[in-house]
Amino acid sequence: MDAREKLQKVLDENKHICIGLDTDENKIPDYLKGEKNALQLFNKIIIENTYEQVAAYKLNFAFYERMGTKGFEILEETLSYIPSKILTIGDAKRGDIGNTCEMYADAIFNKLNFDSVTLNPYMGYDSVEPFLKFKDKINFILVLTSNKSSNDFEKLKLENGKYLFQQVLNSVNNWNVHNNCGIVFGATNLEELKNNCDNFNNLFVLLPGVGAQGGSLEEVTRLFKLNKNNNYLVNISRALIYCENSTKFPKIISETLKNYNKIAMETSR
Amino acid sequence: MDAREKLQKVLDENKHICIGLDTDENKIPDYLKGEKNALQLFNKIIIENTYEQVAAYKLNFAFYERMGTKGFEILEETLSYIPSKILTIGDAKRGDIGNTCEMYADAIFNKLNFDSVTLNPYMGYDSVEPFLKFKDKINFILVLTSNKSSNDFEKLKLENGKYLFQQVLNSVNNWNVHNNCGIVFGATNLEELKNNCDNFNNLFVLLPGVGAQGGSLEEVTRLFKLNKNNNYLVNISRALIYCENSTKFPKIISETLKNYNKIAMETSR
Repeated sequence: MDAREKLQKVLDENKHICIGLDTDENKIPDYLKGEKNALQLFNKIIIENTYEQVAAYKLNFAFYERMGTKGFEILEETLSYIPSKILTIGDAKRGDIGNTCEMYADAIFNKLNFDSVTLNPYMGYDSVEPFLKFKDKINFILVLTSNKSSNDFEKLKLENGKYLFQQVLNSVNNWNVHNNCGIVFGATNLEELKNNCDNFNNLFVLLPGVGAQGGSLEEVTRLFKLNKNNNYLVNISRALIYCENSTKFPKIISETLKNYNKIAMETSR
Repeated sequence: MDAREKLQKVLDENKHICIGLDTDENKIPDYLKGEKNALQLFNKIIIENTYEQVAAYKLNFAFYERMGTKGFEILEETLSYIPSKILTIGDAKRGDIGNTCEMYADAIFNKLNFDSVTLNPYMGYDSVEPFLKFKDKINFILVLTSNKSSNDFEKLKLENGKYLFQQVLNSVNNWNVHNNCGIVFGATNLEELKNNCDNFNNLFVLLPGVGAQGGSLEEVTRLFKLNKNNNYLVNISRALIYCENSTKFPKIISETLKNYNKIAMETSR
């Protein structure tokens, strides 16, 4: 199924929360720690108790890579739990020379069958082009990130008066020939979101930084609704998946997500 | 063993070639294709026939990730063939928020025990800081890359008159408190190498782009010798590891490398 249609469908149902499966063996509920395949089980419980209410699941490669070959197996197993109608995001932040990115794109889109990926634009067009050739996938390219040091380079002023991240945003708009581009824009940068959302056009926007990093779901929701832009995903990782340590975890993660959805719905009225 | 001491020792022996193990099942010599564990065998042959003459081995994660869990096993197995006195570079081009990069650094430095890594600076200081905390490793940070599209952003002019990549170079110099930073600078950009090498200071310089990408070993060697800078590594991947398709491969890769070393030595006189 075309990733763009898949995402458009859930966005039209007013679902905007993406759950970040930043799965960490030290942080999963105590009652799961002794279980065989505890991490797979943890992810399975999350998915089973949230899939009807989410827009997407984002798998952060770092958390799986850390466990070596076993981590790779857990990642593949986790993908198999996700109903095919829900968008999957491979949060890998790839970017390399073309020859290498052909391999990464093959790994992420063909072998792992992710619907979408996150990409780092530093090396320019030919470093993302192998991904853009996949017309039915979505490529979320870093524009302005949610971390403090986004000031270091992303917010440098260029000779033309623009910030570097604005130049990247312009380029992504130009690269969006197949309508398969998206951007990553930190929800922690509300002012910059306001100042630049006119230039988001039909790009899908992935907003990390809500929850543990301090961004506000209400504020970003209000902003997008005000701009009549429905093409946004708000990623929440730690604040959701580590919401409860007891055996009530399945019930409570479902309720916590419902609450987030409720906040989003009420704000949007 | 401290990665910096390890590298310094081989550089002092006038070895500067880094072999990029961009191992691709479609490109290995025909006589190996039918073998069990052909890719491990291919890497093992390369290492056994080159380790006395190289400065480092660089493993490009893309080529292994593409094979899923099996690829991860091949990567780990390959690392076990490399004599501990030779520097290993995990060419992963990582860059993410701090919390995530803690995981990547743990994976690459602790679990896989690489001596060094390549990093993407787009997200700024806090995105590389978890790596910099490893004082006895080397962090090669992208400055100016070897691909054509390095013009897109890396060579954008900033308000202060510098190129973005020059600003990154300045920052890496500032981040080098533990003397554990290096940079990636494309050998394809000879003019920029000339214009910026005064600012390399004591950073280790990894130069990709020689061979298949068109950079010249003679020219970069001449430049570094002229500047009395001995802290450079010239990466060669495809032009070396796919130098021969017959059973003479072990002998010919050894001779090809000897030739590269000879060119480097003669140029440096």
